[in-house]
Amino acid sequence: MSSVNKGCVVVKSSLIDPDGGSLVDLVVKESERDLKAREAESMPRTSICRVCTSIALRMKDGSLVNMSLPIVLAIGDEAKERIGASSNVALAGPDGDLVGILRSIEIYKHNKEERIGRTWGTTAPGLPYVEEVITPAGNWLIGGDLEVLKHIKYNDGLDNYRISPQQLRKEFDKRQADAVFAFQLRNPVHNGHALLMNDTRRRLLEMGYKNPILLLHPLGGFTKVDDVPLDVRMEQHSKVLEDGVLDPETTIVSIFPSPMHYAGPTEVQWHAKARINAGANFYIVGRDPAGMGHPTEKRDLYDPDHGKKVLSMAPGLEKLNILPFRVAAYDTVGKKMAFFDPSRAKDFLFISGTKMRTYARTGENPPDGFMCPGGWEVLVKYYESLQTEEAAQNASVLST
Amino acid sequence: MSSVNKGCVVVKSSLIDPDGGSLVDLVVKESERDLKAREAESMPRTSICRVCTSIALRMKDGSLVNMSLPIVLAIGDEAKERIGASSNVALAGPDGDLVGILRSIEIYKHNKEERIGRTWGTTAPGLPYVEEVITPAGNWLIGGDLEVLKHIKYNDGLDNYRISPQQLRKEFDKRQADAVFAFQLRNPVHNGHALLMNDTRRRLLEMGYKNPILLLHPLGGFTKVDDVPLDVRMEQHSKVLEDGVLDPETTIVSIFPSPMHYAGPTEVQWHAKARINAGANFYIVGRDPAGMGHPTEKRDLYDPDHGKKVLSMAPGLEKLNILPFRVAAYDTVGKKMAFFDPSRAKDFLFISGTKMRTYARTGENPPDGFMCPGGWEVLVKYYESLQTEEAAQNASVLST
Repeated sequence: MSSVNKGCVVVKSSLIDPDGGSLVDLVVKESERDLKAREAESMPRTSICRVCTSIALRMKDGSLVNMSLPIVLAIGDEAKERIGASSNVALAGPDGDLVGILRSIEIYKHNKEERIGRTWGTTAPGLPYVEEVITPAGNWLIGGDLEVLKHIKYNDGLDNYRISPQQLRKEFDKRQADAVFAFQLRNPVHNGHALLMNDTRRRLLEMGYKNPILLLHPLGGFTKVDDVPLDVRMEQHSKVLEDGVLDPETTIVSIFPSPMHYAGPTEVQWHAKARINAGANFYIVGRDPAGMGHPTEKRDLYDPDHGKKVLSMAPGLEKLNILPFRVAAYDTVGKKMAFFDPSRAKDFLFISGTKMRTYARTGENPPDGFMCPGGWEVLVKYYESLQTEEAAQNASVLST
Repeated sequence: MSSVNKGCVVVKSSLIDPDGGSLVDLVVKESERDLKAREAESMPRTSICRVCTSIALRMKDGSLVNMSLPIVLAIGDEAKERIGASSNVALAGPDGDLVGILRSIEIYKHNKEERIGRTWGTTAPGLPYVEEVITPAGNWLIGGDLEVLKHIKYNDGLDNYRISPQQLRKEFDKRQADAVFAFQLRNPVHNGHALLMNDTRRRLLEMGYKNPILLLHPLGGFTKVDDVPLDVRMEQHSKVLEDGVLDPETTIVSIFPSPMHYAGPTEVQWHAKARINAGANFYIVGRDPAGMGHPTEKRDLYDPDHGKKVLSMAPGLEKLNILPFRVAAYDTVGKKMAFFDPSRAKDFLFISGTKMRTYARTGENPPDGFMCPGGWEVLVKYYESLQTEEAAQNASVLST
């Protein structure tokens, strides 16, 4: 592993090499923080939003970096004018606090149509991230060299789960992991997921690894309105570990702060690439990763096999071992989640996310062995609280 | 350079390595042709159309191949049914002749919306290639291992200009080229283009190359209706060489048979990559390559600088030296095409393709020194013939 040092903190690790050979920590040194913070005060400022976080790029040293989703900051005409000819800009958080500096900035047009078309392969109305973030965003994008003055805190009780790639790598080293396998999810963990993760660990042990560690890495940014919210999911994940469905000794739970784009084969590359930098050398990929239904037509937006295919061929992901997901379903004979056996297809019940949410919403119990009782209880309580809230809202509407 | 041989003819060259290290000739050996042709007769068959000819792919050996445009063959429901469970398909040309075999075929859905969105970054109506080729195409795509039984002939008097990558490489070797620079064009050559090509040769000589050869490689497939047709352009290019504007000793003119997609930064990668395989190690790129106006909005479809940027960063094009185009315009003081000098901007006249066509159509002469007289005459004659044709059509409409 090569060591890069341009005044940035370099974290070495015996784990998989991150992009460029070593992690670059953009947080400024403690000793320089006050000076830079005062400097930032004098710069024009622009706001960053919570949800702000293109294909592979060939770098000057010849290495490849996979960048399937653009990581950009949009600004409006007014902000652009305020910045004027300044070459540095201070970045303010939602509460107005200065959290970073962009130096040697470049401002360029935000071609929303092209961004949407190339990211989703459609410009149909109703794409959740487009409606939430891109459509209301400014007509300009700003880029530059980023310096972080302080880590973003969400103050939602979950900040201790927001573990940086550096911290994750340290933790993997501390646990003496010789393999790290990442699982991306935006749903509650049912026993089918657990089967898959535990089976992956078993396969890695069979392959000769002594201590494979699971990175359970739920997505923590924007999700669409009918997905289960982050805090509920985190509580559910805790129960899954408490109930022993996953082994806390060999599992690290951390929040992946990215927003969900639902951009299928494009987004799955970002999901995988980001986990390389977090230390994972194995990535589990299932059917239709980051996919959803077409917003205006009655079909899946993407071919459910394309995500897997793209990961196996995408430039910049050479180092990552892709573990294709075996489909798990509820085995009505064995009364547990099991890998689907096509020879006795009629014994299996597929419980989709929608179906799972319907069970929880209506108070109906799913089949025994679908999810650990502690985890299921969390979901039931959440949907009960939603109904209470809705009833209260309806009541207040009626009374006005 | 590694040598690959799986029963295919391998052409070695001291020039730039093609994708995968050596060119693979898909044309079957003369000795096997009759046998395979008889075999093809017994297969289900499907037609290929004249205009039929995804980003970079990581191959099994770890090498990268840039594939920004999908090269696919669409078939309809009826053809799919006819093929049924057959694993091989015979390919018939427009006249019904069997010209090739696809073996170990795979048939998959033609998601036109996704193809269009990812290729053009828009799904707006009015994209010429979409309307000409994709919209009327079948709902399935067929792929497989291709064997070519005979080269496609167009019988349009220009087949001798349709030179294969193998033949081009032989010709470059014969001329003892130590650098090959390619110029992609779909327009008549004016003296601005010529200045650029001649200046490129001068720069390459300065860099120490002894015999740089120009590959003047006009696009020969589908172009939009207001572009000048191929036969007229080829005649115009001949005049440019006859008039000595380009040196026939150091220029090879060949037709690039690809259809024009007008897909800007996506397509320019295909334009560049295909020329690597044809032997070029230098590629000239200008403003807004393969671009056009947005079909429904009053703006360029692409940022005119993105083509250049993409080429400098795209995976799979590492070997290619990109020569950014310097803008040439008509210098009204020097009375010739010259590199634009911003310090005396008012002396320069930009003559767009549209303006050039208007001159030719109205019979007005462009400024002296814009194009060699022989080449200009070809265009004037073409537009005169168009007007005669239109007049005849109008007359026949009036008389019926």
